[in-house]
Amino acid sequence: MIDNAIKRKDLLGMDDLTVDEIEAVLETAEKLKEVSQRDIKKVPTLRGKTIINLFFEPSTRTRTSFELAAKRMSADAINISASASSVVKGETLIDTAMNLEAMNPDAVVIRHPSPGAPHIISRLLKSSVVNAGDGAHEHPTQALLDLMTVKEKKKRLSGLQVVIVGDITHSRVARSNIIGFKKSGAKVRVVGAPTLIPYGIENMGVQVSYDLKESIKDADVIMMLRIQRERQEGALLPSLREYSIRYGLDMEKLEDAPKDVIILHPGPLNRGVEISPEVADSPYSLILNQVSNGLAVRMAIFYHLLGGKE
Amino acid sequence: MIDNAIKRKDLLGMDDLTVDEIEAVLETAEKLKEVSQRDIKKVPTLRGKTIINLFFEPSTRTRTSFELAAKRMSADAINISASASSVVKGETLIDTAMNLEAMNPDAVVIRHPSPGAPHIISRLLKSSVVNAGDGAHEHPTQALLDLMTVKEKKKRLSGLQVVIVGDITHSRVARSNIIGFKKSGAKVRVVGAPTLIPYGIENMGVQVSYDLKESIKDADVIMMLRIQRERQEGALLPSLREYSIRYGLDMEKLEDAPKDVIILHPGPLNRGVEISPEVADSPYSLILNQVSNGLAVRMAIFYHLLGGKE
Amino acid sequence: MIDNAIKRKDLLGMDDLTVDEIEAVLETAEKLKEVSQRDIKKVPTLRGKTIINLFFEPSTRTRTSFELAAKRMSADAINISASASSVVKGETLIDTAMNLEAMNPDAVVIRHPSPGAPHIISRLLKSSVVNAGDGAHEHPTQALLDLMTVKEKKKRLSGLQVVIVGDITHSRVARSNIIGFKKSGAKVRVVGAPTLIPYGIENMGVQVSYDLKESIKDADVIMMLRIQRERQEGALLPSLREYSIRYGLDMEKLEDAPKDVIILHPGPLNRGVEISPEVADSPYSLILNQVSNGLAVRMAIFYHLLGGKE
Repeated sequence: MIDNAIKRKDLLGMDDLTVDEIEAVLETAEKLKEVSQRDIKKVPTLRGKTIINLFFEPSTRTRTSFELAAKRMSADAINISASASSVVKGETLIDTAMNLEAMNPDAVVIRHPSPGAPHIISRLLKSSVVNAGDGAHEHPTQALLDLMTVKEKKKRLSGLQVVIVGDITHSRVARSNIIGFKKSGAKVRVVGAPTLIPYGIENMGVQVSYDLKESIKDADVIMMLRIQRERQEGALLPSLREYSIRYGLDMEKLEDAPKDVIILHPGPLNRGVEISPEVADSPYSLILNQVSNGLAVRMAIFYHLLGGKE
Repeated sequence: MIDNAIKRKDLLGMDDLTVDEIEAVLETAEKLKEVSQRDIKKVPTLRGKTIINLFFEPSTRTRTSFELAAKRMSADAINISASASSVVKGETLIDTAMNLEAMNPDAVVIRHPSPGAPHIISRLLKSSVVNAGDGAHEHPTQALLDLMTVKEKKKRLSGLQVVIVGDITHSRVARSNIIGFKKSGAKVRVVGAPTLIPYGIENMGVQVSYDLKESIKDADVIMMLRIQRERQEGALLPSLREYSIRYGLDMEKLEDAPKDVIILHPGPLNRGVEISPEVADSPYSLILNQVSNGLAVRMAIFYHLLGGKE
Repeated sequence: MIDNAIKRKDLLGMDDLTVDEIEAVLETAEKLKEVSQRDIKKVPTLRGKTIINLFFEPSTRTRTSFELAAKRMSADAINISASASSVVKGETLIDTAMNLEAMNPDAVVIRHPSPGAPHIISRLLKSSVVNAGDGAHEHPTQALLDLMTVKEKKKRLSGLQVVIVGDITHSRVARSNIIGFKKSGAKVRVVGAPTLIPYGIENMGVQVSYDLKESIKDADVIMMLRIQRERQEGALLPSLREYSIRYGLDMEKLEDAPKDVIILHPGPLNRGVEISPEVADSPYSLILNQVSNGLAVRMAIFYHLLGGKE
């Protein structure tokens, strides 16, 4: 069906992917998206393959998306939630991974609070490793689904002005998207309070702004990041209310943006904090398209890593 | 196979169903029950369909029944346990539902502590919504399996005297069963301490009694409700021991009931509280038939909502 | 495919199995192991069968192994985690089991903290019951995978000197392995602190030693048990550090063992406590082979109990 399969064992980060590989994944995802709209939402492509979802952080949404992607490709999916300390019983990440490997899975999807965890296990495992989020480092399938969503609407990525708003420092979503959009030829601007923008980020080739209203005047794409309420304890945020006033996107701030701007959010939404309900539910918002495309992108990743070999 | 498919998207409550629809479901369930007795317990009817079990309250038994029903119809089942606050991360029910919808499921089975939660999401989703219990409101698949169990044994529903015993006020099982049995032509009497019977329940067309022994003299069916131990805190129950003496069903109280009386309980049992072990394990008890029929009823519901369309 | 099927409904313990049955399982496992190395890791043997994993103690590894074994045989697997008290709501083990039985599963795999729990439910259920660990009593699939791993390497079991090291008193792994190796004609020696070796264990036909270094001089197989850190509270262990010095296996203690000794550990490892990282990762260690063989043994058990009937 698809013969431009990417030639790698793992998907660890946007950093590794070439522009051609990114385009190949998006193209496959576009084709596989249609499977989820059929009456029989299933293709036999990965029958007899085993995909393990190994989640060291809870995430119903991402886990569900990967599980459904596996099942719609006819693979067997096994979920392992390793957040409870009793589950791992003090075993090291490496022992856990080697153990799973001994059961001959075809792919291990891993979410872990430590940056680099997927990279460590990828070197030890023959099976494919997919990074589903490692600390504040990368979340490549999120970036791929965002690229897909933008391209679907704008018909191109190159030359677009993308504005990413929120806690840039702690966001793997921001990091993976900056890399992905830059590689695809888009311009990226990050916006947030000075405490939430990492020093030296200009070296990634992005502009920095502290003024949301001003920064979205020329935006083709606005990506609002989720505020992690737990960060507040670290006194990086003054208060949710104050944050919302300065960096929350509402209809009033959106007034000066171009009429064809599109708005993304990785979810789950804090309605009334980083995004107002009116904006989230407006025609500018592609938040639900992101979810649909997330499923398609994950099916495409499994296709390229597991199925494309044959 | 079955051509009297009911014409609705959702199963939200017994309140919505017509008598014809109830009969259609029971008839289908009766036929599908045989699948679970085969050596190969699986029909291909719902291959390629996705069924999501979204449980905001823990319930191993009901979730297992729905999951198995999906799998025996060859559908893909995804379980989401949203009881832990970390899972939903403050997201609203509506956002959660819209998110799932964006992955194109065919049905969302929802259990939620708030009455009306399934109705809210049913209006937003193109996929079918099945109410697996919403607060103290409705639990329609429980009522359908109870109707099926009684009809299997008594060969009819019309004219039967049904006696429902326990905490009527807080019981969605009682509510759905009252509606279901009334629609099917049975007479219903509720029995319990005055604090546990809602004011004005006579308007639902039921008799009220505070005397268990007296009230079962003419019973064809006795349905014992589970006592929720946590209700005790609200001082609605004097003590489990006192409750058991007055409203627990034991062999002594059962003496005056008709010889062909049948006893139901939605489970899980509090043996020695609302039902004595002798009664629970007696030939009068159809508790395990209820479980088998629960699986069949859920297969039938999936058949009618998802499969009967074609 | 295999016609020496064992003739029993359940696998409750090594105590029940005859030597012929043990050999039949190992032979089947050897054949089924190859399935997990195929590109399409799935045989249709148990299509339409339902296998329920009922775990009253958390165990990601064992549950994953049973779940994967079921799926690679094409059975439907249902996971029930009953550790949370809210899940069982005070229901008795027997009611839980009868309830599951009413849904017509083909096998119930049970892990339970009480010795004998699987035996109790096996008498009540028509479906097969597989003991996945019951308190300090038995863990037969662990013993079978250990026997398989040793036989694979040593080409025989009879006459081998097996040394089991650690907390013998509280170990179901030790108990099942002692029975399995003795039945297979091997000699077994147990080694540990006097507080951790049950009085009268010589009656099981094993030697007792308190000196690790001395006891492994003639060992063909050394099986290191996992130290349960929670036992420490009972003051049975002086300290992990002291335990490690006397009964932890490191390269220095291993020096006097035969050059072709093999080392097993049921996992998960406490690296640096009962086994040093150097030993765990040495060529003597067959720890990952045990995991692979565990999957094959569980597929074989399902084959014999469910598939071999036809």
